[in-house]
Amino acid sequence: MSITLYDLCGQDDRRFSPFCWRTKYALAHKGLAFETVPVSFSAIKTIGDGSFKTVPVIEDNGTWVGDSWEIAKYLDKAYPDTPALFPNPEVEALCHFVETWQFSNVLRQAFPAYVHDIYLHVKEEDRTYFKESREKQLGGTKLESLVEAREEKLPGLRSALFPLRMTLGNQRWLSGDTPGYADYLILGTFLWLGSVATLPVLEKDDPLLVWLEKGRDLYNGLGRTSPCNEIAA
Amino acid sequence: MSITLYDLCGQDDRRFSPFCWRTKYALAHKGLAFETVPVSFSAIKTIGDGSFKTVPVIEDNGTWVGDSWEIAKYLDKAYPDTPALFPNPEVEALCHFVETWQFSNVLRQAFPAYVHDIYLHVKEEDRTYFKESREKQLGGTKLESLVEAREEKLPGLRSALFPLRMTLGNQRWLSGDTPGYADYLILGTFLWLGSVATLPVLEKDDPLLVWLEKGRDLYNGLGRTSPCNEIAA
Repeated sequence: MSITLYDLCGQDDRRFSPFCWRTKYALAHKGLAFETVPVSFSAIKTIGDGSFKTVPVIEDNGTWVGDSWEIAKYLDKAYPDTPALFPNPEVEALCHFVETWQFSNVLRQAFPAYVHDIYLHVKEEDRTYFKESREKQLGGTKLESLVEAREEKLPGLRSALFPLRMTLGNQRWLSGDTPGYADYLILGTFLWLGSVATLPVLEKDDPLLVWLEKGRDLYNGLGRTSPCNEIAA
Repeated sequence: MSITLYDLCGQDDRRFSPFCWRTKYALAHKGLAFETVPVSFSAIKTIGDGSFKTVPVIEDNGTWVGDSWEIAKYLDKAYPDTPALFPNPEVEALCHFVETWQFSNVLRQAFPAYVHDIYLHVKEEDRTYFKESREKQLGGTKLESLVEAREEKLPGLRSALFPLRMTLGNQRWLSGDTPGYADYLILGTFLWLGSVATLPVLEKDDPLLVWLEKGRDLYNGLGRTSPCNEIAA
C-alpha cells in the first residue's frame, strides 16, 4: 500500500510548501511509492485525528507522522533497506546546519519579497487567514506594501547564496556525488519560490541553475510535477 | 614514530593559522601523536623539498602531505582503525559546505577587521612580506587604515554567525553528539582570531562561547596550547 502525503496546495494545483517538497524528495530518494492529497491551509485541521497544525503529514498504513524532519527519521527507521536519508548521525547533524543556514539566509530573506506572491496563489478559502496571520507575523506590515521596491532585496538574497554556489562549483551535489537530504532542503525552498514568484529570484546566468534544473529532473521529474513560474530571468 | 606538523607561528610562540589548527584537531581526533615545528611565513620554503607554499604540512614517517583537506583525507586513509574524520563521502561533502560558509561569512568578513592585528603578531622576519602581500590582496588599502572604525564591522560579523548559533542551540556539536571536522573547521577560525585579536570578536553573553570553550577543552585542552587574547568582552 502506498504512503499518503498531505501536501499544501494553492490555486491551479500549485504545491508550494518548501517542507512538503522536501518530504516528496525524501520519499522518492527511498524509492517509496506515495500519493499526495492536496490540502489548503484551512483543511489542515481535517487531516487524521485533527491534531496536526502544519503539513507535511504522512499516513503509512495506519501510522500518522507530521513534521518534515520527523517524517525523514521515521522513513529511515521504518524502511531500513532503502537508501538512507541520514546514513549516520553526523549527516543528520550537518543537515541541521544546512537547514538553519537556508532558513536564515535564504527563506527568511526571501519571505518579505515573496509573501505577497504566496498570498496571490493561495486558495480563495485561505486568503483571509493567510493575510491576517502573515501581517501579524510581520508586525502589522501590509503585504501589498512589501511588493514596492522588492527588487532591491534581490542582490542581497542572491549574494547570500554564495556558499551554496561555491560549494556546488566543486561538487555535483551538496551531499556529494549523489543527491541527499541537504539538497532536498534547499531544492524545496527554490520550488516554493518558483511556484509563486511573479519576480524571478535568480539571474539567468547563475551557475546554481545547473544544480537546480538537475534537481528538478530527479526521480522522473518530481520537481516539475506542479505549476512553476520563472525562477530565473 | 610521531607525526611532525609544520605549524605557522608568530611572536611569543603564537600559533595563529586557522588551517594548522584544524589539522591539530584532526590529528587529535584520530588519537595520533604529533609534534609541531613552529615556522614563520618566511620559513615555509625550507620545509621538506622546498615545494610547499602554505602550511599545514605534515611529515609522517617519510610521507609529506600539505593542505589541511588533503591531510585529513590522508589521515583517514593511512589510519583506518582510528576514528574517521569523514566516516562517509556525504560527511565530507557537507563539511565542504560548512567550510565555504565559514570562509565567506566568517573568515572573509573578519579579515579586514583583524588583518592589522595579525600583522602586529607575526614574527619580525615576516612583517614586510605580510604587509606588502596583504595590502596587495586588499587592492592597495593600507593595513593601518582598516583599524579605524573596525568596531562597526562587528555587529555584521556577529549576526553572520546566526546559523551556527541556532544549530548549536539544538545540538551539542556541529557534527552531532560528538565533535567532528565541521567543528574543527570553525574552531580553527576562532582560534586564529583569538590568537591575535586586540578587539574581542564576540560579546561575552554570546551562547557560542559555551561551544567554543568546550572546543578549546577537547583533547587535553588543545585549544589552550598557544597564547590567546580575549575572544569575548
